[in-house]
Amino acid sequence: MDLLLINGPNLNLVGKREPSIYGSQTLEDIQEELFNVAKEYEAKLKFFQSNSEGEIIDCIQKSVGSIDGILINAGAYTHTSIALRDALLGVAIPYVEVHLSNIYAREEFRHKSFLSDKAIGLVCGFGPMSYQIALQGIVSYLKQA
Amino acid sequence: MDLLLINGPNLNLVGKREPSIYGSQTLEDIQEELFNVAKEYEAKLKFFQSNSEGEIIDCIQKSVGSIDGILINAGAYTHTSIALRDALLGVAIPYVEVHLSNIYAREEFRHKSFLSDKAIGLVCGFGPMSYQIALQGIVSYLKQA
Amino acid sequence: MDLLLINGPNLNLVGKREPSIYGSQTLEDIQEELFNVAKEYEAKLKFFQSNSEGEIIDCIQKSVGSIDGILINAGAYTHTSIALRDALLGVAIPYVEVHLSNIYAREEFRHKSFLSDKAIGLVCGFGPMSYQIALQGIVSYLKQA
Amino acid sequence: MDLLLINGPNLNLVGKREPSIYGSQTLEDIQEELFNVAKEYEAKLKFFQSNSEGEIIDCIQKSVGSIDGILINAGAYTHTSIALRDALLGVAIPYVEVHLSNIYAREEFRHKSFLSDKAIGLVCGFGPMSYQIALQGIVSYLKQA
Amino acid sequence: MDLLLINGPNLNLVGKREPSIYGSQTLEDIQEELFNVAKEYEAKLKFFQSNSEGEIIDCIQKSVGSIDGILINAGAYTHTSIALRDALLGVAIPYVEVHLSNIYAREEFRHKSFLSDKAIGLVCGFGPMSYQIALQGIVSYLKQA
Amino acid sequence: MDLLLINGPNLNLVGKREPSIYGSQTLEDIQEELFNVAKEYEAKLKFFQSNSEGEIIDCIQKSVGSIDGILINAGAYTHTSIALRDALLGVAIPYVEVHLSNIYAREEFRHKSFLSDKAIGLVCGFGPMSYQIALQGIVSYLKQA
Amino acid sequence: MDLLLINGPNLNLVGKREPSIYGSQTLEDIQEELFNVAKEYEAKLKFFQSNSEGEIIDCIQKSVGSIDGILINAGAYTHTSIALRDALLGVAIPYVEVHLSNIYAREEFRHKSFLSDKAIGLVCGFGPMSYQIALQGIVSYLKQA
Amino acid sequence: MDLLLINGPNLNLVGKREPSIYGSQTLEDIQEELFNVAKEYEAKLKFFQSNSEGEIIDCIQKSVGSIDGILINAGAYTHTSIALRDALLGVAIPYVEVHLSNIYAREEFRHKSFLSDKAIGLVCGFGPMSYQIALQGIVSYLKQA
Amino acid sequence: MDLLLINGPNLNLVGKREPSIYGSQTLEDIQEELFNVAKEYEAKLKFFQSNSEGEIIDCIQKSVGSIDGILINAGAYTHTSIALRDALLGVAIPYVEVHLSNIYAREEFRHKSFLSDKAIGLVCGFGPMSYQIALQGIVSYLKQA
Amino acid sequence: MDLLLINGPNLNLVGKREPSIYGSQTLEDIQEELFNVAKEYEAKLKFFQSNSEGEIIDCIQKSVGSIDGILINAGAYTHTSIALRDALLGVAIPYVEVHLSNIYAREEFRHKSFLSDKAIGLVCGFGPMSYQIALQGIVSYLKQA
Amino acid sequence: MDLLLINGPNLNLVGKREPSIYGSQTLEDIQEELFNVAKEYEAKLKFFQSNSEGEIIDCIQKSVGSIDGILINAGAYTHTSIALRDALLGVAIPYVEVHLSNIYAREEFRHKSFLSDKAIGLVCGFGPMSYQIALQGIVSYLKQA
Amino acid sequence: MDLLLINGPNLNLVGKREPSIYGSQTLEDIQEELFNVAKEYEAKLKFFQSNSEGEIIDCIQKSVGSIDGILINAGAYTHTSIALRDALLGVAIPYVEVHLSNIYAREEFRHKSFLSDKAIGLVCGFGPMSYQIALQGIVSYLKQA
Repeated sequence: MDLLLINGPNLNLVGKREPSIYGSQTLEDIQEELFNVAKEYEAKLKFFQSNSEGEIIDCIQKSVGSIDGILINAGAYTHTSIALRDALLGVAIPYVEVHLSNIYAREEFRHKSFLSDKAIGLVCGFGPMSYQIALQGIVSYLKQA
Repeated sequence: MDLLLINGPNLNLVGKREPSIYGSQTLEDIQEELFNVAKEYEAKLKFFQSNSEGEIIDCIQKSVGSIDGILINAGAYTHTSIALRDALLGVAIPYVEVHLSNIYAREEFRHKSFLSDKAIGLVCGFGPMSYQIALQGIVSYLKQA
Repeated sequence: MDLLLINGPNLNLVGKREPSIYGSQTLEDIQEELFNVAKEYEAKLKFFQSNSEGEIIDCIQKSVGSIDGILINAGAYTHTSIALRDALLGVAIPYVEVHLSNIYAREEFRHKSFLSDKAIGLVCGFGPMSYQIALQGIVSYLKQA
Repeated sequence: MDLLLINGPNLNLVGKREPSIYGSQTLEDIQEELFNVAKEYEAKLKFFQSNSEGEIIDCIQKSVGSIDGILINAGAYTHTSIALRDALLGVAIPYVEVHLSNIYAREEFRHKSFLSDKAIGLVCGFGPMSYQIALQGIVSYLKQA
Repeated sequence: MDLLLINGPNLNLVGKREPSIYGSQTLEDIQEELFNVAKEYEAKLKFFQSNSEGEIIDCIQKSVGSIDGILINAGAYTHTSIALRDALLGVAIPYVEVHLSNIYAREEFRHKSFLSDKAIGLVCGFGPMSYQIALQGIVSYLKQA
Repeated sequence: MDLLLINGPNLNLVGKREPSIYGSQTLEDIQEELFNVAKEYEAKLKFFQSNSEGEIIDCIQKSVGSIDGILINAGAYTHTSIALRDALLGVAIPYVEVHLSNIYAREEFRHKSFLSDKAIGLVCGFGPMSYQIALQGIVSYLKQA
Repeated sequence: MDLLLINGPNLNLVGKREPSIYGSQTLEDIQEELFNVAKEYEAKLKFFQSNSEGEIIDCIQKSVGSIDGILINAGAYTHTSIALRDALLGVAIPYVEVHLSNIYAREEFRHKSFLSDKAIGLVCGFGPMSYQIALQGIVSYLKQA
Repeated sequence: MDLLLINGPNLNLVGKREPSIYGSQTLEDIQEELFNVAKEYEAKLKFFQSNSEGEIIDCIQKSVGSIDGILINAGAYTHTSIALRDALLGVAIPYVEVHLSNIYAREEFRHKSFLSDKAIGLVCGFGPMSYQIALQGIVSYLKQA
Repeated sequence: MDLLLINGPNLNLVGKREPSIYGSQTLEDIQEELFNVAKEYEAKLKFFQSNSEGEIIDCIQKSVGSIDGILINAGAYTHTSIALRDALLGVAIPYVEVHLSNIYAREEFRHKSFLSDKAIGLVCGFGPMSYQIALQGIVSYLKQA
Repeated sequence: MDLLLINGPNLNLVGKREPSIYGSQTLEDIQEELFNVAKEYEAKLKFFQSNSEGEIIDCIQKSVGSIDGILINAGAYTHTSIALRDALLGVAIPYVEVHLSNIYAREEFRHKSFLSDKAIGLVCGFGPMSYQIALQGIVSYLKQA
Repeated sequence: MDLLLINGPNLNLVGKREPSIYGSQTLEDIQEELFNVAKEYEAKLKFFQSNSEGEIIDCIQKSVGSIDGILINAGAYTHTSIALRDALLGVAIPYVEVHLSNIYAREEFRHKSFLSDKAIGLVCGFGPMSYQIALQGIVSYLKQA
Repeated sequence: MDLLLINGPNLNLVGKREPSIYGSQTLEDIQEELFNVAKEYEAKLKFFQSNSEGEIIDCIQKSVGSIDGILINAGAYTHTSIALRDALLGVAIPYVEVHLSNIYAREEFRHKSFLSDKAIGLVCGFGPMSYQIALQGIVSYLKQA
């Protein structure tokens, strides 16, 4: 089982800025931990982060054939990018939407997502633990499919 | 760690009706499995289901003092009940919002929740697995708190 | 052919209060008359009334297996209860939505119904005669099905 | 008792096109059957169909003095014609709004009617049977008036 | 100076129905009086009434070359007909919008007009006197132009 | 017959500024001409202009007992002042709403008036002639009342 | 004079939870104090509290004949329950809407009430004192009626 | 304790116009009665009324240092004046919003207030008694503060 | 291949009025040219124009059996006529929506079309050339079907 | 170069109330400093402040002929006064809109301005420095004009 | 005549993914065919595709001086990118908006385009043939210009 | 004091295209002038321009530690990019929003900014002078901080 975790804009700052909100774990720390958890599920987890909408689309398109499931925290692009939605639908790889924070407890413009209605499911609000939870979800989904 | 899983209206039908949507696991099956998973986390999980908004509020109020965290799938009341929100805020017990289906892939009136902005987090779309995922989330939250 | 007529909140007041609007026939009178009309159609009509959303849901759930069609005047819950909608969809029993008054001639918040798009049909505005008309509709529908 | 059934745009196609939706009864078949049912109520039922908003208004205006009640299925004009509403109010003949299909189960622009708030009542969703049900309603209304 | 008064749907009923609202002057009476007032302004006033949107458009198109100004009470088409607006703009004859009743004191859907922003001016609410007032307005406008 | 013409904010600039829009007649010129036209109707016309909402309200309140009808061009207060509306309703003197320009051909925030639904009628778009037309309207109304 | 104070969902928690918001007086304390104040007005005050919408409706219906006026703090049902509104209108007992907190200073979904337009009046924001103030209002209203 | 009652536009007409709505007590009568009730609370009550938004703001600003609490019935300015809100917030004197009529039973544009979310509380619908009730509220608030 | 070009209200004015917008080609010129282009595609093109919604519906209904594809420029009816939409769906003949002007560069009420979501495609903005382009589209579509 | 700085309602309180928000500089202090900065630009700066909408309009009207540019901080009137907009457009003196605070960081009703679309430019958020910045802007604009 | 065809995000997937929707022609196939059609019009057609909004803007900016007309299928950026609109307006090269699918038959968020009101025209719904049709449009437009 | 001026999409065209709107100064000219003005304030001003949202985010992230304040003219991204907002908040460097044109005098979709509520302040409408004005603002802000 080959999985891909995509992190969108500004998520490279996690653990480096605003620790009171996002904790002190860096994205690298989080990914390392996740990689190990994935191994327990006998899954191989790859990682991609970019601040550029176009590069994320390129990455999704290139996943065809090698990736079985995607975990995506598209950051702010969640709320503005129809192009990301199209890329995910275009490649037809099952994906789970993840957010570190509870997006419904934030500004109203973060309540709308262009990704959720086509996702398998959505996980948000658990901080870095959100990724582990979402990982469990996608693995469980792929095993049943 | 004492936890409570609340299921709202019509969730007693799970596994009995519309199996193509909700699978063939009954609520009782799901709860039994969850009880065991909770045990692994050294948590004691109790269960409550009702079709009545008032009874769910009563149940939440009675949890004060004996329950550390709540998992709640309020079903249709998620979208219409401010009274449930008030009960959860009134008792000030941390809770996670759970849904079997991906509510964002359904009718638009299911996209708005009166519970999510005050929840720790939200999990939806993974079928019965949603509960296990949410359980992991609340346990992880309570351990850090 | 087994049919069920469900009356929601405040409909137990019909004929007792506000006679200028609802006439002087009590709900009991109306039901007696309806029972006889149903007999002519060789249908057996049962009755249920409650002011509680939860009790109506319970009643709908219990109809599975014994009821072929439902006539429902959900009163004010028509406009606010997604849970009733879910119960009706969950049991998958065909139903007709009925109202004594013309709901489109009343406050704007009564123009929206959570039940109509999934109903076989809708009848409103004919006073107690609305029930007889709706009865004819459901019988005719069930005979064709 | 003299009654008029008005059918608006495209209803002349019923039974000729889209039989899976509207059945195979033509408008002529339906009207013949209705004429006989009306006779049982000792009512004389006339018929009018036009695709033109102006002609329907002319027809309504000419009914003054000779028609006691109107059944109207204004088709698409239901949702767009204030002029039809004005004509019906201008002649002050009681009318019932009828639709073959359940308009609330169709596109959102069919949920709004310019006729319903001033109608005696509304019947929709029972296919050709809708007309018979509505006929029963107007007859019952006129007998009480 | 050649002028045309266009009356839209249901205005042929004026004075015949609903006298408490529109008075007991028929459209013919009103037009006769207006014809004489127009003469005092040395203007020749013609009249047209139809319940059909298409016929009114035809009439407007035929006015090119023979009519200097239009008074139009488009009745209910005021609020729904973009085609009338296009016809009036297409022939580029100055026009005044008139209404017998105060349209802002009626249902909200009568507050919007597709004609007013391109009219010279608007007169409403004075009953049959509205036409005389509007006549004075168009004459005064044409004399200055 | 005693009449009052009220002009609201910035209407004292008419004829002095923006002549291409409002013409070169000053408010004084317009009022003088109107005074004479009123005389022909055997009406006595008084005038009031103020840029202050409060002063206009004071003026309306003081009209009780001495004024039979009001012509009001409330300028920008038309669209923002509920207090003016209340004053006019409080004194219960019939009034006509007037505007020099066609308010529907201007910014959208000028399309809504707090005065029109309670006015006898509305006249707009004829420049200074709007006042004469409105005068004819109020006189005709008062003679019939 | 027989009066009834109805408290809706979660108001049984007052004084027990969130003392910083609602003070340390329990509902029982408040009611005792109110009972005495009512006595000074020569009124007999009864009390009812429930978390269930249906039970509150039952209670309102049973008040017919024995209660002259109702004070109602419907809590969250204020904003969601058309059925409560219908019950109050059905029994036609004058009522005053009360809230402990200033509902306009809270979430926007608490700004809309299904009860206020048919109430005698509304009192909110004064904490437990709100009830005393509202009591004075209903007593004063009933004495004048 | 020094208190100020501010009455906004058109409230000087109370008791003089529209007695069927506002009763026959003039503002002077009401104020005299209130003055005496205030005395019982050992409070000194001053009065101010103006039809001018600017003058009310001036009055509020001048209250700094001499007034402990404000009762304000801002009339129509309640719904349109952000400047009044700013004045009240600027001087930071606690205030209660009062209305004679039930503003929620009137036109929709009266349902929104720029004052309520920052007020201690709101009282409306009890006629002149509203002021006494509000007085009790502000006194009780100031005694606790 | 038999094709029909339908032109709606006011399109008979093309080339006769407002040449700066629509050019100096009359509808007859345009149709002649189109007829010849159609011939090159081995298609026979018929023409229909009417200012009446009802007549256009009649025309569409009569096309069944003799027409393979429709080009329709419904003019203003594009934005207001659900009945035209129903007629086109009723006959189930593939159609292309055409406009001479770019409707998105005009008034906002022209941005919504009741025809486009069920059309094969949409062409607008190229003046008379729009018809040739749309013709190429429908021919290409029908050849592939 | 003659310039005018207009300050609207409650800005006379600056430096006297709420120092944590607006600083401790009074309006007089700010104006004195600005006067000197203006001198460096060889401009003469006059000042006007009022809490009354009408007086500000009067002031703007009187500026014709003596003032070359206006700096206006209309306070709360920014969001509610169309009359101020009309006055500024009426006199056709170029103006710059200024605010001490960042209006986009405050309540949503402060995000809309009736003045900005016709202003040369907008400056907000820099506290008293906003005036100096705006002054530089208007001077620079007038030098280029 | 030098033309440029720009394809936005995910359009590089055409013919490779989702063949049932987009057919089996790849973008390369489509472009080759288009190149030849363009030659027949004596036009030279260049091609650009990118998933990055910024790169498309760069490409548009570089077209100044060498490109006479642009065909643009901006994919999902059509609905979200004001920056693309600005680039097209900045370089002032005439452009035609093209879509493979009928965007009005898809999700509502695809009905709004930031490009159409400034385009020469719009073509959508004809699959790859849309490009040929749009090509004919731009060539025809440029020949007339 | 180290400052950064960020210019977003299409601002590299300034002075090269549309000189009637933006003047004939190129971005390079403007930056040179600004650099010198900054020197007078003893500030070092750096420059960055990109048409790519992702590159601007990268640039903002890299500013941490070396930049004290940011001037940002995000062009069209102002209205669509939540990711830019997140980047600016993530790095927590104070910033001022700048626009050459008055965005409130342009299309409505330019009236909303995702950047303004978190900016120190906003300057727009003064052409290239906007930058100098904004520079004065950020310098003044940083000196006080």
